Amino acid sequence: MIDHLRRYMPILDWGRTYDRKAFSNDMIAAVIVTIMLIPQSLAYALLAGLPPEAGIYASIAPIILYAIFGTSRALAVGPVAVVSLLTASAVGQVAEQGTAGYAVAALTLAFLSGGFLVLMGVFRLGFFANFLSHPVIAGFITASGILIATSQLKHILGISSHGHTLPEMLGSIFAHLNEVNWITLAIGVSATGFLFWVRGNLRPALRKLGTPPLISDILTKAGPVAAVVATTLSVWLLGLNDRGVKIVGEVPQSLPPLTLPGFTPDLLSALLVPAILISIIGFVESVSVAQTLAAKKRQRIDPDQELIGLGAANLGAAFTGGYPVTGGFARSVVNFDAGAETPAAGAFTAVGLAIAAVALTPLVYFLPNATLAATIIVAVLSLVDLSILQKTWRYSRADFTAVAATIVLTLGLGVEVGVASGVTISVLLHLYKTSRPHVAEVGLVPGTQHFRNILRHKVETDPALVTLRVDESLYFVNARFLEDLVQKRVTNGCGIQNVVLMFSAVNEVDYSALESLEAINHRLKDMGVGLHLSEVKGPVMDRLKRSHFIDDLNGRVFLAQHDAWAALSKQNGQAKAAE
Amino acid sequence: MIDHLRRYMPILDWGRTYDRKAFSNDMIAAVIVTIMLIPQSLAYALLAGLPPEAGIYASIAPIILYAIFGTSRALAVGPVAVVSLLTASAVGQVAEQGTAGYAVAALTLAFLSGGFLVLMGVFRLGFFANFLSHPVIAGFITASGILIATSQLKHILGISSHGHTLPEMLGSIFAHLNEVNWITLAIGVSATGFLFWVRGNLRPALRKLGTPPLISDILTKAGPVAAVVATTLSVWLLGLNDRGVKIVGEVPQSLPPLTLPGFTPDLLSALLVPAILISIIGFVESVSVAQTLAAKKRQRIDPDQELIGLGAANLGAAFTGGYPVTGGFARSVVNFDAGAETPAAGAFTAVGLAIAAVALTPLVYFLPNATLAATIIVAVLSLVDLSILQKTWRYSRADFTAVAATIVLTLGLGVEVGVASGVTISVLLHLYKTSRPHVAEVGLVPGTQHFRNILRHKVETDPALVTLRVDESLYFVNARFLEDLVQKRVTNGCGIQNVVLMFSAVNEVDYSALESLEAINHRLKDMGVGLHLSEVKGPVMDRLKRSHFIDDLNGRVFLAQHDAWAALSKQNGQAKAAE
Repeated sequence: MIDHLRRYMPILDWGRTYDRKAFSNDMIAAVIVTIMLIPQSLAYALLAGLPPEAGIYASIAPIILYAIFGTSRALAVGPVAVVSLLTASAVGQVAEQGTAGYAVAALTLAFLSGGFLVLMGVFRLGFFANFLSHPVIAGFITASGILIATSQLKHILGISSHGHTLPEMLGSIFAHLNEVNWITLAIGVSATGFLFWVRGNLRPALRKLGTPPLISDILTKAGPVAAVVATTLSVWLLGLNDRGVKIVGEVPQSLPPLTLPGFTPDLLSALLVPAILISIIGFVESVSVAQTLAAKKRQRIDPDQELIGLGAANLGAAFTGGYPVTGGFARSVVNFDAGAETPAAGAFTAVGLAIAAVALTPLVYFLPNATLAATIIVAVLSLVDLSILQKTWRYSRADFTAVAATIVLTLGLGVEVGVASGVTISVLLHLYKTSRPHVAEVGLVPGTQHFRNILRHKVETDPALVTLRVDESLYFVNARFLEDLVQKRVTNGCGIQNVVLMFSAVNEVDYSALESLEAINHRLKDMGVGLHLSEVKGPVMDRLKRSHFIDDLNGRVFLAQHDAWAALSKQNGQAKAAE
Repeated sequence: MIDHLRRYMPILDWGRTYDRKAFSNDMIAAVIVTIMLIPQSLAYALLAGLPPEAGIYASIAPIILYAIFGTSRALAVGPVAVVSLLTASAVGQVAEQGTAGYAVAALTLAFLSGGFLVLMGVFRLGFFANFLSHPVIAGFITASGILIATSQLKHILGISSHGHTLPEMLGSIFAHLNEVNWITLAIGVSATGFLFWVRGNLRPALRKLGTPPLISDILTKAGPVAAVVATTLSVWLLGLNDRGVKIVGEVPQSLPPLTLPGFTPDLLSALLVPAILISIIGFVESVSVAQTLAAKKRQRIDPDQELIGLGAANLGAAFTGGYPVTGGFARSVVNFDAGAETPAAGAFTAVGLAIAAVALTPLVYFLPNATLAATIIVAVLSLVDLSILQKTWRYSRADFTAVAATIVLTLGLGVEVGVASGVTISVLLHLYKTSRPHVAEVGLVPGTQHFRNILRHKVETDPALVTLRVDESLYFVNARFLEDLVQKRVTNGCGIQNVVLMFSAVNEVDYSALESLEAINHRLKDMGVGLHLSEVKGPVMDRLKRSHFIDDLNGRVFLAQHDAWAALSKQNGQAKAAE
């Protein structure tokens, strides 16, 4: 019973051995992460089109629930940039930003996403996330980073603009350029410049001045807080909000409220597909971060249990005024680097954020939106990495095509179309590649028992015996290819008496391929040519034996290719001698 | 120039060597096929919801165009049952049956289908047809056969009913059962019984009576003509059309007219997807028939040129009052068995049908629809083969799932949904299978240089050296699986110093898998474990060399697994000796 519980609640595992040292390490990590998260949570809420407190609420219950159900010891769960953008895109289709319906739709999205993740976890379907190839993810993240940064330009410029795709956004920005608020622009540009400088130069500068590493780190992490404080003070002291600078305004002083997602069938069905998409993208991002961090300490994470942990976190967000969350890259790395040992660090962060929600929210009244936009821009531009285009171009045109299509379609048609097309294109390209497998005609390397490609090596051959090595599993997409290939080879050749298919790299033969093999066998029989197999793997042979193919085979099955050569070459020699 | 032309017009090839013997063989085949095609063409037009002459027109120009551009010497092109059903389903969505718009939509469908096929052929994209796996095709044909037979029941019963799915059809038939016309039913049942008897028993009976084989064959093929003549005479002599028996009625006495498909954007976009579906299904059916027949004479067909041949045939149908056509199984086999040697047999058939269209159409005025329905039912029930369920169940659950889903969805939701789901399910099942590849831990078979699965064989192993043989190409769907597997093995093992990945069955490493290998390398390095590769194939190695992976590898690449064993086991031995 306890074992069963422990499988679904890893807290029962690490909780029993929790000690003072782990506690103090976790506490330090929590302080650093909390400082970083306060402005970030407000900013991502803005990106999702929600009131700022939603970002903080989305970081409290979810963190605690993930600490109970998740398997990664360093993952920090909460709002992240890409999921916030996806939320804005999905919720924007069913409700107007700023209305009560918008917030409810965001809760519903978190609820559906949480439910979907838990279901996937219970049925152990984590492998579905693998349909997102690395190049598609990289292309998608890069394009999303560009989209997100562009979407924040309106806050920096102090104008109102719209759009979910790059052309829409840019068009709308150009159309509203006459409305630019120059004070907002000054705040936005200086905050962005300052944050870029902090990110790139502050730490080395402090270290040069002799500041100890830990302090340098904390000061660097606190950069956004400094920008927040400085710009908030400027707005307050100079009364800039009366001169058109948009500010965060009133934020309720409250612990996360109890909230209910919407359960109307219309809303649920409209948000189902986006929720699935958000779940999968969030899961993939989260698992890759968790896996990387776990490996550094020779720990392991369980992807199926991660689904349950992230699902619980999203369900938590749905009932406490949040919106979809996942394990974020930046916050998790900070948590890990700051020395977090167990998920308790997350729980302490949650407490810190709860205190902030109750005590600090009045302080952000005069915080300009431009500063939050600057925080987002600096954070997401680090996600933009166009070098993936160059890397994949060098490695494989198919992968390059998938990346390029994902980037172009995400920018041009929006995040949902982009990622769906990316997945479809990767799958089609893979099927296309396997549809024309490499098949080598092989001969004997003299003096050995090895058989190699006759085009690449000097080998012995026998004109009456053709051996084809099939370098691919045989299934419906390439079954007919093999049929054509064998028939072409036999029709074009002269005096061929035997064909051997060498199956050393055939890992599967599905029913379509079985029928193709039967057709090949049948046709060769009609032509008076023998068909033989060699080096068939155990599992493939087991399966072939379930059909009549082996019984009907107009030839034999040889364990090793050399046995086939010995038997058929000799038989052929005897035939010649008899003539 | 001539060579180039000849590639696209195979007639230039066989036409040069055409002689008297081939002519007389082709002529005999043409007579037999023409007799068979007259009632069949009328019947399939009925199935497609078109006037009867459309079936004859669809058999004239297309046959001639295929004779010029096609590569199969025996394929007979014209209306077939499944494509007629698909036509009815597609055209029924844009126009009311019996209206002028309906006929124009059918022409447009043929036009789009022809254009699509020609384009596919010019770009040599025939491989796309491979996405239809054999089980999906078998399931689809079987379900279509059931749907078609059910759709004809209304003609046998003399009632009016509707529906595109089995539940709809059956529901509608039950609702109209009170309208049954008993004379029609009597004609329909006796025609059906007679045709089943002809198909099953006439030929053996005639042979027993000493009739020569050729005559027996022709008489058997003429069975439907006999049914047509007998029922037409009954209706005419007894005036049954006045007692509610529906008849074919007036059919224009004319050669195929010149017609124009509709070119309005609405119509084109509404019919584009069905046209693509019809093209692919028609192409697959046609190519498998053509391939089977070609193999019997050691001839070959060129699938890409077949696309052009079938495309030309459909374009021909579009401009001469027809509807989508393809190479039919029954008619092609009859043509082949009757001794057709070249596509000229098809051209002679076309002439026969043209004569019929001009001279014989008044004779079918009193032909009851019930007889045509009986012809269709008897023809399509031979397509229904539920044994595919049992065969795939025995061979592989994945293939069984694909067949069963295709059958159930085609019957339950219609032909288009059925075949699209079948393709999607096959692709997903294939990806699922490759997402969890077979990976065997191998050891040395004592006294040999062979390495085999440690679970299946008695082999030598070294606790410090783990060798994993990966039995699948590595790509995005299974990249993470390998990452997990290696990490699990190394985290769970004790004192592991080296891991060898044996790549003998790895035919591809895509960019995602490359990144996973890099991650594995990185993590093992962090753990102080070496990562080595063995038996990497030429093309895979070429590709890996384009990245930094081989340079960064925390270990070596061995040509043969035995080299890896010799080097790493020994190195390990020395390490032990040094302790």
